Amino acid sequence: MSKPVALVIGAGDALGGAIARRFAREGFTAAVVRRNAEKLAPLVAEIEAAGGTALPFGVDARREEDVIALIAGIEAGVGPIEAMVFNIGANVRFPVTETTARVFYKVWEMACFAGFLAGRETAKAMLTRGRGTIVFTGATASLRGRAGFSAFAAAKHGLRALAQSMAREMGPQGIHVAHTIIDGAIDTAFIRDNFPDVYATKAHDGILNPDHIADAYWALHVQKRDAWTHELDLRPWSETW
Amino acid sequence: MSKPVALVIGAGDALGGAIARRFAREGFTAAVVRRNAEKLAPLVAEIEAAGGTALPFGVDARREEDVIALIAGIEAGVGPIEAMVFNIGANVRFPVTETTARVFYKVWEMACFAGFLAGRETAKAMLTRGRGTIVFTGATASLRGRAGFSAFAAAKHGLRALAQSMAREMGPQGIHVAHTIIDGAIDTAFIRDNFPDVYATKAHDGILNPDHIADAYWALHVQKRDAWTHELDLRPWSETW
Amino acid sequence: MSKPVALVIGAGDALGGAIARRFAREGFTAAVVRRNAEKLAPLVAEIEAAGGTALPFGVDARREEDVIALIAGIEAGVGPIEAMVFNIGANVRFPVTETTARVFYKVWEMACFAGFLAGRETAKAMLTRGRGTIVFTGATASLRGRAGFSAFAAAKHGLRALAQSMAREMGPQGIHVAHTIIDGAIDTAFIRDNFPDVYATKAHDGILNPDHIADAYWALHVQKRDAWTHELDLRPWSETW
Amino acid sequence: MSKPVALVIGAGDALGGAIARRFAREGFTAAVVRRNAEKLAPLVAEIEAAGGTALPFGVDARREEDVIALIAGIEAGVGPIEAMVFNIGANVRFPVTETTARVFYKVWEMACFAGFLAGRETAKAMLTRGRGTIVFTGATASLRGRAGFSAFAAAKHGLRALAQSMAREMGPQGIHVAHTIIDGAIDTAFIRDNFPDVYATKAHDGILNPDHIADAYWALHVQKRDAWTHELDLRPWSETW
Repeated sequence: MSKPVALVIGAGDALGGAIARRFAREGFTAAVVRRNAEKLAPLVAEIEAAGGTALPFGVDARREEDVIALIAGIEAGVGPIEAMVFNIGANVRFPVTETTARVFYKVWEMACFAGFLAGRETAKAMLTRGRGTIVFTGATASLRGRAGFSAFAAAKHGLRALAQSMAREMGPQGIHVAHTIIDGAIDTAFIRDNFPDVYATKAHDGILNPDHIADAYWALHVQKRDAWTHELDLRPWSETW
Repeated sequence: MSKPVALVIGAGDALGGAIARRFAREGFTAAVVRRNAEKLAPLVAEIEAAGGTALPFGVDARREEDVIALIAGIEAGVGPIEAMVFNIGANVRFPVTETTARVFYKVWEMACFAGFLAGRETAKAMLTRGRGTIVFTGATASLRGRAGFSAFAAAKHGLRALAQSMAREMGPQGIHVAHTIIDGAIDTAFIRDNFPDVYATKAHDGILNPDHIADAYWALHVQKRDAWTHELDLRPWSETW
Repeated sequence: MSKPVALVIGAGDALGGAIARRFAREGFTAAVVRRNAEKLAPLVAEIEAAGGTALPFGVDARREEDVIALIAGIEAGVGPIEAMVFNIGANVRFPVTETTARVFYKVWEMACFAGFLAGRETAKAMLTRGRGTIVFTGATASLRGRAGFSAFAAAKHGLRALAQSMAREMGPQGIHVAHTIIDGAIDTAFIRDNFPDVYATKAHDGILNPDHIADAYWALHVQKRDAWTHELDLRPWSETW
Repeated sequence: MSKPVALVIGAGDALGGAIARRFAREGFTAAVVRRNAEKLAPLVAEIEAAGGTALPFGVDARREEDVIALIAGIEAGVGPIEAMVFNIGANVRFPVTETTARVFYKVWEMACFAGFLAGRETAKAMLTRGRGTIVFTGATASLRGRAGFSAFAAAKHGLRALAQSMAREMGPQGIHVAHTIIDGAIDTAFIRDNFPDVYATKAHDGILNPDHIADAYWALHVQKRDAWTHELDLRPWSETW
């Protein structure tokens, strides 16, 4: 009998990696996806070194046929997708007058459209079993627009609307659809290199540890179906928001 | 001296027409836009018969170069755009598993991306004068996802995030950016033909009169800048929501 | 035949006065209420000097029997209450650990409980005619809690919930219930004396003019019932929010 | 060394009992509070039979001096309060015109004012240690008013505003303040006896199991402080919302 699969789309960042490790630790095959599969080698190696199972997939999640093939292929050849996490970010910041059509479109394509493709295809597979968990990663910009965030906020709002619509449709069919609001900096090389002041707050837990976010995703997966959470926020204690 | 211009993008429906008439009645040139300019002839004729000025433009509002040309052309050849209303709807309803990538994309392109193009280009023109009003038409789906509304809610949420982001950027530069939530059926041929039960409530004001919505848009335009409204909802008294 | 009555509860501040003047100018008898009737003399004199009609009432709006008597008395002896504005504020700011039970209670009693009493009694009178407008004045704290705002935000959130509940009940019975979000400083002696930096922004419309807020309240009253607004925000153009 | 204390205010219902049991199972002394201490005997017996420790307190949580004494007494004589759950409900349903001032006040006093007292006093104690968890139990009415819910929604909105304000103040001082939205019927004798149709859905997990809600409360307590949740919702999978 095959292991259950946790499909993590957008496994190229610290959070996606942590989520993959967490589910692998619980006995799932972590199917990890980013555009360039080679860059997934360290994550796969890390999971395997810890005794887990991981499979890397190089897929452009914005391409419908590729997403269809990815999910059908996993279902046919790896195991049943019991959890799918859509974790592609696309944080950009430009005044609206300096936001190109290309940027507005690309950000949406990555952060919202790809989520729709992954969500729809995963839901179809899960519906055949009447169970499964789908989590979309959101941000503060999922809740409110802000100066400089036209493109990012529009895409993240769209993803949240997708998550809400799917939850209402899929819940009564046994699929748990959730949306997280990550409100704060995550412990990544990007923050370390670009925002050293923010990164310095790590010393007293001022930035989000990806492993702790992953704990929340795992908790969503194991919630009993009489008490499902659709949305929760995660932020450092020291955040003044 | 040229008249001020009210640009109505999405003038093909009852609401767009009513908004154009309202601004024309106040002395604006109504620049009315839909994909097929010929279909605008009755609206233009109606406005002119009432003593107003209207100019029809056949433009696909999803094409960046066409929107740029439209707005530059109006500014150069017609008059200053003092008000822009983005009013393109794209209400569709499908279960998420039956929503094609094409539908998800097209709905977003019409209801959100075109709004970005129109908003950005109008803002640029208005910024040269430090004044102007931009109104985006929203719906209940702008606030909440719902079963069957993945595509529509995602697009409308995106448009609302755009409006919020633009308001925060443009307000302090003198541009009034607003967003309306139209919550209920509007008095249109579509409702009359497809939802006769709903339409029957017109007898006691149970559906929205486009002219009354247009009054609200006009009121947004004439608000003094010390007391601007960013968002308001509009619904029939009898709506139980 | 008697004039229609606009009842303004909390007419002691600049906004309440402006609303009373606005409705009086439109031919209403302005029934203005604050705890100490004598302090209403200047407002009444001003309205009468402008050719309007105003009646001062010294009532503690937190006392049920007094509110019942006030509204019954106006209905019996002055005219039908066609509009009621609840405008009592109670803005205080304390860390939660320094908020006394007395403060938490008093703020709620003024800003929420009194609104319930006024809303309920006015609704009863309006229901006999199947029409009327009730507006509750809200603030940013109606939408979000914030450090230092435990008492004020709790009361204002409560008032908003009341407005929403009443709107859903009363709308289909012909009563228009609305809630405003005033987001910014209003042009008052209080702001002038305590926040001179904020007040200085008045020179370029940086603080809310009570007369312009009053325009929005009047617009709510004259909205046609097929297109009612339940909630709108009002803020200066220069506000970065 | 004394055990940590979990103080559960409003331990008279199924949820309060489940939370007390959960924390007791984790090694906490469950300090359980309701107005009549005698009625807590079965809960205390159950916790002790399972090897836990529980102490019953008969306190009227609306009385400031009694809440002060309760918390000071526990801190002095039982142990440090590491978690406090405010769980007093007061669900009533009346049209606004039939809502008495007494009902409006009592509902607020129980569901909001008592929460303020408990929150403030607990926060003071926790601040001396720079850590602790405070959870307020909310409901759908915390988010939206509804016909018949004037009193209940006003009180629950107030409690949510309190929770938000406290979170912003207390978070940076090390206290985790959270708010839950329980959206659906809980498995209680009340639902069984009064809503048999709803209760029948229990067979397929259609009503919330208090033990599963308690799991979510426990998870909030053990979250690492770099990734705290302020708000989450809980509802049955089959809920169409």
